[in-house]
Amino acid sequence: MMFTAAVIVGNPKPQSRTRDAAERLASALGATSTTIEVSELGAGLLGFGDPLVADAVARVQDADLVIAASPTFKGTYSGLLKLFLDQFATATGLAGRVAVPLMLGAGPAHALAPELSLKPVLVELGAICPAQGLYQLDKRYAEEGALDTWLGAWAPAIHASLREDGSR
Amino acid sequence: MMFTAAVIVGNPKPQSRTRDAAERLASALGATSTTIEVSELGAGLLGFGDPLVADAVARVQDADLVIAASPTFKGTYSGLLKLFLDQFATATGLAGRVAVPLMLGAGPAHALAPELSLKPVLVELGAICPAQGLYQLDKRYAEEGALDTWLGAWAPAIHASLREDGSR
Amino acid sequence: MMFTAAVIVGNPKPQSRTRDAAERLASALGATSTTIEVSELGAGLLGFGDPLVADAVARVQDADLVIAASPTFKGTYSGLLKLFLDQFATATGLAGRVAVPLMLGAGPAHALAPELSLKPVLVELGAICPAQGLYQLDKRYAEEGALDTWLGAWAPAIHASLREDGSR
Amino acid sequence: MMFTAAVIVGNPKPQSRTRDAAERLASALGATSTTIEVSELGAGLLGFGDPLVADAVARVQDADLVIAASPTFKGTYSGLLKLFLDQFATATGLAGRVAVPLMLGAGPAHALAPELSLKPVLVELGAICPAQGLYQLDKRYAEEGALDTWLGAWAPAIHASLREDGSR
Repeated sequence: MMFTAAVIVGNPKPQSRTRDAAERLASALGATSTTIEVSELGAGLLGFGDPLVADAVARVQDADLVIAASPTFKGTYSGLLKLFLDQFATATGLAGRVAVPLMLGAGPAHALAPELSLKPVLVELGAICPAQGLYQLDKRYAEEGALDTWLGAWAPAIHASLREDGSR
Repeated sequence: MMFTAAVIVGNPKPQSRTRDAAERLASALGATSTTIEVSELGAGLLGFGDPLVADAVARVQDADLVIAASPTFKGTYSGLLKLFLDQFATATGLAGRVAVPLMLGAGPAHALAPELSLKPVLVELGAICPAQGLYQLDKRYAEEGALDTWLGAWAPAIHASLREDGSR
Repeated sequence: MMFTAAVIVGNPKPQSRTRDAAERLASALGATSTTIEVSELGAGLLGFGDPLVADAVARVQDADLVIAASPTFKGTYSGLLKLFLDQFATATGLAGRVAVPLMLGAGPAHALAPELSLKPVLVELGAICPAQGLYQLDKRYAEEGALDTWLGAWAPAIHASLREDGSR
Repeated sequence: MMFTAAVIVGNPKPQSRTRDAAERLASALGATSTTIEVSELGAGLLGFGDPLVADAVARVQDADLVIAASPTFKGTYSGLLKLFLDQFATATGLAGRVAVPLMLGAGPAHALAPELSLKPVLVELGAICPAQGLYQLDKRYAEEGALDTWLGAWAPAIHASLREDGSR
C-alpha cells in the first residue's frame, strides 16, 4: 500500500526533535511524507486568509495521513500548533483523513496529553484517529525500538483506516 | 459485511433510554447485537474475579464492535460503567475491538464528555475508536434522523476498522 | 485554624496505599480527618437511596475539606470512587466544601489524570478545588518530603479557601 | 476589598464579544481591570523574548485576578490565547494569582471546555482557579442576569482566594 503523510510540526524552533520524531513516525508507518514547519508560516497565522497559510492547509489536506506533532508546553500542545489547526474548517477540514496526535516532552508526566487534549482537536476537524495518542520522551524517541510497542498495538488500525481512505 | 456488537449499558436503571439508544446505534451500524446491562451484574462488580462479571467481560470480548453507553452523571460517564470497564485488562482487554463511546444527557452542556472522558478509557483498554464520541439528548435520540449526521460522518470509518478486524 | 477533613478512599482493596497517602495529605494540611472506605459501603452503592451510603455522604458533607482519593485504573479514577461521587447532588452536593483530587499510580504516565479527569467531577458537585490535582507514585508517596513541592505551591491556596469556608 | 484584574483576550478579532464578556465578568467581580488584546501583540508572539510580549506578561503578573478569555475554536481555546499563555513560566508564571477560565461559544455543545481544557493550562502556570470554568453563549452573555447563577456559586470562592492573595 502506498500512501502519503503530511507532518505538521508545531515547534517554534525549526529542525526540532519534534520534527525528527514525527518524520520517523511517518517513515515507520510506511508513508512518503511532506513536512510543514508551522513556524515558517509567519505572521499570517495570526489572522485568517493568508495565502501561504492556505497553501499549507491544502498540502495537509492532500495527504492520506496527518501527523500533528507538538512539543509539550504547559501540559498540552503548543499554541503554535493550535494556531495552525484553527485554520481548518470544523468537521470537514480533515474529514476522511487519518490522523495521529504526537507530542514530545522532557519527562513522562504529561503522557496523557496527546490522547486527552490533542486528539479531540483533530477529531473536531473530522479526522479519523484510530490509534492512541503517542507521547515520546525527547531524550529517547530516537532510540532503537522506541516506537515498537506503540506500532505493534496501533499500526494495524492506522493501516486499516488508510485502506478505506485509499478507496475514496 | 456481517459483524456483531456488544452493547454495554452503564445505567443503574434497567431498560433505560441509554440502552435503547445504544441498541439503536448498533442496529443503525448494521450489527447483530447482544446487550450487557451492567446493573444486572450485581455486587460482584465491586471486587475482582466474580464469575458472572468475568462471563460478561468475555461476551464483550467476543464481539467485533463494542458500544459503551452511559448516562451523563456529574459531567461524565457513570461510576457503574467505569466499574465494569475496570474489569478489563489494560492495553489488551479490548485490543483489536472497534469501540464507540456513547453518552446520553438531559441537556447539551456535556456534549464533549464522550470524546474527552469516555473514549480515552476505551483506548486505554486497547480499543480502536475511529469515530468521534457520540452524545445524544435523552429527549431526542429516538427521533427520526437523530443519528444521520453522526452516521454520515463516522460510519465509514467504523466499517473500515471492522473490516480489518474481520481479517484477523 | 482548626478544620476537619473527610478522606474518601476509592480503592476496592481496604487499607490501601491510596488510603494511607490520603490520610497523610490530610494530616500534612493540618486537618483532623475521618475516612470513608467506599469499598465498605457494599452493594448499596449500585443504586440510590441506601441508608449506609447516605450516611457516608453526610459524613463527607460535614467536613470542611474533602480529599477524594483513588488508585489509577485505566488512566483515570476508579469506578468505585465515581460510584460514590455519583451519590452527591450536582452543583450542591459539595458546594462550599474545599476539595483535593488525589490519585496514586504505579508509574508517572498518568500524572495529568487528577487535574484533567477527577477535579472536574468534584467541581461539578460544587466543590472549590483551588489546588492542582495531586498525583503520587505508589512506591514513593510515603518518602520523606514527597509532598513538599506540592504543599509549598498549593497549601496556602487551600488554607485561604478553608478560612472563607469557616466563616459560613 | 480593592483588587485589580488583567483580562486576557484571545480572540483574533479586536473588540470582540470575548473581550466584552471578560470585562463584564471582571466588573461583576468588583475588579478594576486592564485588558490585553493578544491579537495586538503581533508576530513577537511566534517566538520568545519579544519586549512587547514580555511587557504584556508583566502586566498580567501585576494583577491580583486573571481572566483568561477565548472564543471556542475546534472545541477548545484559541491557538492565539495559548500562544500567549506559552510565554509564562511553568509553575511560577501565575503563581499566587487567582484566575478564571472563560470561553464564549455559538452553541452549548462545548460548555465543558473551560473546565476540562483551559483551566488545566492556567493551573500548570501556578494559578489558583477556585471557580468552575465559565462558558457563555455569544448571543446571550450580555443579557441581564446571564452571570447570576455562576456568580452566586463561585464569586465567594474567588473573593476568598483574593483575600489571601492580598495578604502576600
